Amino acid sequence: MTREDGRSADQLRPVTITRNWLDHAQGSCLIEFGKTKVLCAASASEGVPRWRKGSGLGWVTAEYAMLPQATHDRSPRESVKGRVGGRTHEISRLVGRSLRAAIDYKALGENTITIDCDVLQADGGTRTAAITGAYVALVDAVEHLRSKGALTGEPLVESIAAISVGIIDGVPLLDLPYVEDVRAETDMNVVMTGGGKFIEVQGTAEGAPFDKPELDALLELAAKGCADLTQLQNDALGR
Amino acid sequence: MTREDGRSADQLRPVTITRNWLDHAQGSCLIEFGKTKVLCAASASEGVPRWRKGSGLGWVTAEYAMLPQATHDRSPRESVKGRVGGRTHEISRLVGRSLRAAIDYKALGENTITIDCDVLQADGGTRTAAITGAYVALVDAVEHLRSKGALTGEPLVESIAAISVGIIDGVPLLDLPYVEDVRAETDMNVVMTGGGKFIEVQGTAEGAPFDKPELDALLELAAKGCADLTQLQNDALGR
Amino acid sequence: MTREDGRSADQLRPVTITRNWLDHAQGSCLIEFGKTKVLCAASASEGVPRWRKGSGLGWVTAEYAMLPQATHDRSPRESVKGRVGGRTHEISRLVGRSLRAAIDYKALGENTITIDCDVLQADGGTRTAAITGAYVALVDAVEHLRSKGALTGEPLVESIAAISVGIIDGVPLLDLPYVEDVRAETDMNVVMTGGGKFIEVQGTAEGAPFDKPELDALLELAAKGCADLTQLQNDALGR
Amino acid sequence: MTREDGRSADQLRPVTITRNWLDHAQGSCLIEFGKTKVLCAASASEGVPRWRKGSGLGWVTAEYAMLPQATHDRSPRESVKGRVGGRTHEISRLVGRSLRAAIDYKALGENTITIDCDVLQADGGTRTAAITGAYVALVDAVEHLRSKGALTGEPLVESIAAISVGIIDGVPLLDLPYVEDVRAETDMNVVMTGGGKFIEVQGTAEGAPFDKPELDALLELAAKGCADLTQLQNDALGR
Amino acid sequence: MTREDGRSADQLRPVTITRNWLDHAQGSCLIEFGKTKVLCAASASEGVPRWRKGSGLGWVTAEYAMLPQATHDRSPRESVKGRVGGRTHEISRLVGRSLRAAIDYKALGENTITIDCDVLQADGGTRTAAITGAYVALVDAVEHLRSKGALTGEPLVESIAAISVGIIDGVPLLDLPYVEDVRAETDMNVVMTGGGKFIEVQGTAEGAPFDKPELDALLELAAKGCADLTQLQNDALGR
Amino acid sequence: MTREDGRSADQLRPVTITRNWLDHAQGSCLIEFGKTKVLCAASASEGVPRWRKGSGLGWVTAEYAMLPQATHDRSPRESVKGRVGGRTHEISRLVGRSLRAAIDYKALGENTITIDCDVLQADGGTRTAAITGAYVALVDAVEHLRSKGALTGEPLVESIAAISVGIIDGVPLLDLPYVEDVRAETDMNVVMTGGGKFIEVQGTAEGAPFDKPELDALLELAAKGCADLTQLQNDALGR
Repeated sequence: MTREDGRSADQLRPVTITRNWLDHAQGSCLIEFGKTKVLCAASASEGVPRWRKGSGLGWVTAEYAMLPQATHDRSPRESVKGRVGGRTHEISRLVGRSLRAAIDYKALGENTITIDCDVLQADGGTRTAAITGAYVALVDAVEHLRSKGALTGEPLVESIAAISVGIIDGVPLLDLPYVEDVRAETDMNVVMTGGGKFIEVQGTAEGAPFDKPELDALLELAAKGCADLTQLQNDALGR
Repeated sequence: MTREDGRSADQLRPVTITRNWLDHAQGSCLIEFGKTKVLCAASASEGVPRWRKGSGLGWVTAEYAMLPQATHDRSPRESVKGRVGGRTHEISRLVGRSLRAAIDYKALGENTITIDCDVLQADGGTRTAAITGAYVALVDAVEHLRSKGALTGEPLVESIAAISVGIIDGVPLLDLPYVEDVRAETDMNVVMTGGGKFIEVQGTAEGAPFDKPELDALLELAAKGCADLTQLQNDALGR
Repeated sequence: MTREDGRSADQLRPVTITRNWLDHAQGSCLIEFGKTKVLCAASASEGVPRWRKGSGLGWVTAEYAMLPQATHDRSPRESVKGRVGGRTHEISRLVGRSLRAAIDYKALGENTITIDCDVLQADGGTRTAAITGAYVALVDAVEHLRSKGALTGEPLVESIAAISVGIIDGVPLLDLPYVEDVRAETDMNVVMTGGGKFIEVQGTAEGAPFDKPELDALLELAAKGCADLTQLQNDALGR
Repeated sequence: MTREDGRSADQLRPVTITRNWLDHAQGSCLIEFGKTKVLCAASASEGVPRWRKGSGLGWVTAEYAMLPQATHDRSPRESVKGRVGGRTHEISRLVGRSLRAAIDYKALGENTITIDCDVLQADGGTRTAAITGAYVALVDAVEHLRSKGALTGEPLVESIAAISVGIIDGVPLLDLPYVEDVRAETDMNVVMTGGGKFIEVQGTAEGAPFDKPELDALLELAAKGCADLTQLQNDALGR
Repeated sequence: MTREDGRSADQLRPVTITRNWLDHAQGSCLIEFGKTKVLCAASASEGVPRWRKGSGLGWVTAEYAMLPQATHDRSPRESVKGRVGGRTHEISRLVGRSLRAAIDYKALGENTITIDCDVLQADGGTRTAAITGAYVALVDAVEHLRSKGALTGEPLVESIAAISVGIIDGVPLLDLPYVEDVRAETDMNVVMTGGGKFIEVQGTAEGAPFDKPELDALLELAAKGCADLTQLQNDALGR
Repeated sequence: MTREDGRSADQLRPVTITRNWLDHAQGSCLIEFGKTKVLCAASASEGVPRWRKGSGLGWVTAEYAMLPQATHDRSPRESVKGRVGGRTHEISRLVGRSLRAAIDYKALGENTITIDCDVLQADGGTRTAAITGAYVALVDAVEHLRSKGALTGEPLVESIAAISVGIIDGVPLLDLPYVEDVRAETDMNVVMTGGGKFIEVQGTAEGAPFDKPELDALLELAAKGCADLTQLQNDALGR
């Protein structure tokens, strides 16, 4: 089996992370997985939501959205429809949950970091690009708080990256672009720490149900991809 | 480690499935996992959504919701707030996706089955109870279509059940009630076929990240729980 | 004239009130008028809405809603449509108003009781079943507050029940199921106290306008039905 | 007992009906009950809503609303809040139901009349002024359709008027302005035909429950008020 | 070129300003530009929005809306659609901005004036009638605050009026009714002070782009119209 | 007077237009006016909205929006708030109107071009950058339709550019960044054709009212700025 873009089964698409793409946000990057482009922006502000006040703990939240012309066919704007779609809701929750796993709330102190992941162009893997880029923006937002003396310790306890994997014609593949995504029998998004542990595993049988050996093969591929992404994040962050 | 309700680690809570709890719906059941009560109702109607017309294929969709007093503290009604929350959206999508894996669209013909899962009382595991009960309602709705001669074959290709598993104090446990759920370091919902294959695997690190052996242990527990639920579904369906 | 279900003109359908159907709510019952099933749940909480703070007075409010598959044909979910329909609004207001007539706000103290009436199955008379069941849940929620020492007196000043009456082919009938409801020329919902006084009288000419003798006949029937329901409430409450 | 404005118990406030207050609407009037001012406008258009097409029957519907500065304290605009309030919904439904009782759908043919009742100033009795004025606008909209040859008979089968009555300090009073309305123990809105039959009776115990003799006294007062309004409508219509 | 209504090119339609048309509002008028009728109501209340508290400055805001039957064909109610349309939003912002130019916030003190402009009938020029009438209501609301001793100086620094101008068949015309508005190649709304300076200039090429001489001619016409309106406002205000 | 960024009064900020920044859209560019970055994307599709079908005429529409972190302080997402704000509505309408002035609907045929202008970073002049960039995207979308043989002539009748001008301390200045914008006494946005005629003139007195000589000075500056932008558009388009 040959992939349309000539990659091997366990190879990422070309990934670029342009750090500080924005001037106002406390942390930001434009992350690209092939043609997928996601603008990640992190704002860091003092204070926490009301339900958390006085706890001494910080908060991290995220919103994911897609521009109307990110996809091949223009999709209606959610603000104009007056409601956030189920898919948007679900991915926003996934991104926020994943980033919160990177953070020690106590060390963050009563500060809030909000991360917006806006998909400027979509070609598969937008949620995994969003999480991977959001982590870079998060690190810079944390540094911003540190430089202001607003932290009470080191809030960054894990490095976080995410990748999609899937099975096409029985072959497990890493980092699926749109043309592969629509053909996948099984589709899985995996969020991992830099140390190789799991934060989220979301596998879905799009076609036939899958068995344990297939699951194992996908997770192994994902571990490889997340390790590669962790390296790219470290490069972008000058670590 | 002893569980508060005295169960062993791999034991389900008492499960009851009261089939045909409603008079109007084409299929229905009240399913209980311990104190969790979900009313599942399936309507079967001729025709499919516009984007599917003329395809010869059927459609299955689901909506999940929770009554305001299902939880310990009353939560505001989504209809009154004017928007469906992210959690509701996400679970509705999960239930729909899971049920669609049970169905051969071609054999269903251009008919639509809509399944509503309304949580009357919540004590952990509402989404897995919803999926497990929804399958029972789905079977009866399919039978209803069959009795009307509206099918073109056997649409039921898989039996579907779902269960939650989690790790507390390092111990993998099956079917978590609310008191266990809030303490779990890792939380996983697994949807499986009667034949023991995976439809959905959704694992989340609530506390520390988890590793492959932990994931394997959880999946094994889940397989045991889903097999037990499949048996209970068959009993309810008189198979 | 014979009724389809064999009842006499002034006879209620079989009524069952299953008290404490829920575990979390401070008061609850599943009430059935024939095939109509309404789940009534009352939450009692300290404090009152902002506009009432410092008044020393309590507050009682209610919300009525219908599950999508309660009716013969599935109706779209109001949360998904993003707005509460006029009928729902109107009945919620009626239920709240009726229950407030049962309460001495001063004796309730600055506590709020919220009653949710969710129609699980609809076969006519859902609003009157809701009010009748809500009163039972209200009593238990008041007892809950009493047991916590949160009351300043006896807030329950009236017992409340409600029934529908209508005229079909010139004959006044009590407690109309759906098949009769759609045929009624005049439709009336009456809320009464246990002592036989009126809380609400809502009569509507669905077909021809009605005259005073017809109105009088309907009110007399309603008084009989409400008295029967009051007895059933007392039985359920162990009075 | 003396009323603040010097009226006798069974006397209407000064009522004026300025017919054809608008230039574009097919029927319109500005109706005033004392300081209460309601602008009623009727549009008549060919065709009926989709669910009624091909039935040969017409349709009449109504919307009631209040300008933000109609009341003593400005209330937020429902369009800005993004939702129609329960009170608005309830009164819109009442107005529509009442007007439909005036109409023979078959004679109306497949035409739709939509009546908007916008309260420009509120001083009690807005819903009854709305219904009374809406009937005048309805008549003109029907005449408009007749002049275009769009009718298949005489659709106006009843004349419709409405009035509020209430009990203050034990005395039944007709046509309550705001200052009386807030003091009323019992509040009733009655819609009647020109022939003295009932279309709607909506009585509510605001304070103590009411008994049958009180109800009878209120209905008698309302009959007197509606008869007076019918005369004023006939005068305005040049009948 | 002759105008359909016989006016000269620089002549206003008949304008009437009925001051204090409402009883409750602190300032109000019904303003008519020909068949265009706008009800302007100003409420004056102590306090300012939260973001302005403690500043010592007042606030003025406005909302513009149109009744459904104001236009030739009934348009759906924005409250029922659940959202304010773009045109409504835009004009509300214009009216508010224009009125704020009339006010010295410091002299107004921490008081808020809210002005509602509701179009009862539309025949072109509704936004300019709204601004012109709103100024009259604003003056009375300011007087109301003055009479209560709530002001700290004279907040009224400018008199404000507005008019539309347009070019039809190459001829600049003042105060366009609907029939002219739809034919205009260029359409301009101009808000001016009593002293002849500009507050807002909004010119739009509806057909062909316009050049500087055309712009100049339109502005000259507008200055003439605003001066005439200022005189009519002064008459209404008894200045 | 010296500008903070050292520009002369009639000088644009550095402007860059990166054409075809997106892969899927039929036309696109990333336009930057200094730190202001707007992504403009045009989709071209066959067919027109329902109200225009069968007319033989095309349609052009636009939507403007701002990412939450485009501004210095993060602003809530309109999709999450569930409504489009007034400013967004107003600018979307302005962009659409301006672009429609560039188009001959007849030559466009029954095709629709939708242009999305998403502000990725805001530093003043976002609406003028949006219009200027949207024109470039529009040209490419028209070319796309031409290459498919979908046009019936040359739809591009005008070239369109837009710039902001304002008066600070009495000095008219071109192309205001945020720091100047907040200080401006008068603020004007001008949309012009490549031939130097006006499409839109929107001037607002933010502080004191302005007079005719000030207006004239601003328009002259704007004409210079639009001419410079037209040149930059032509360069980007390879004209």
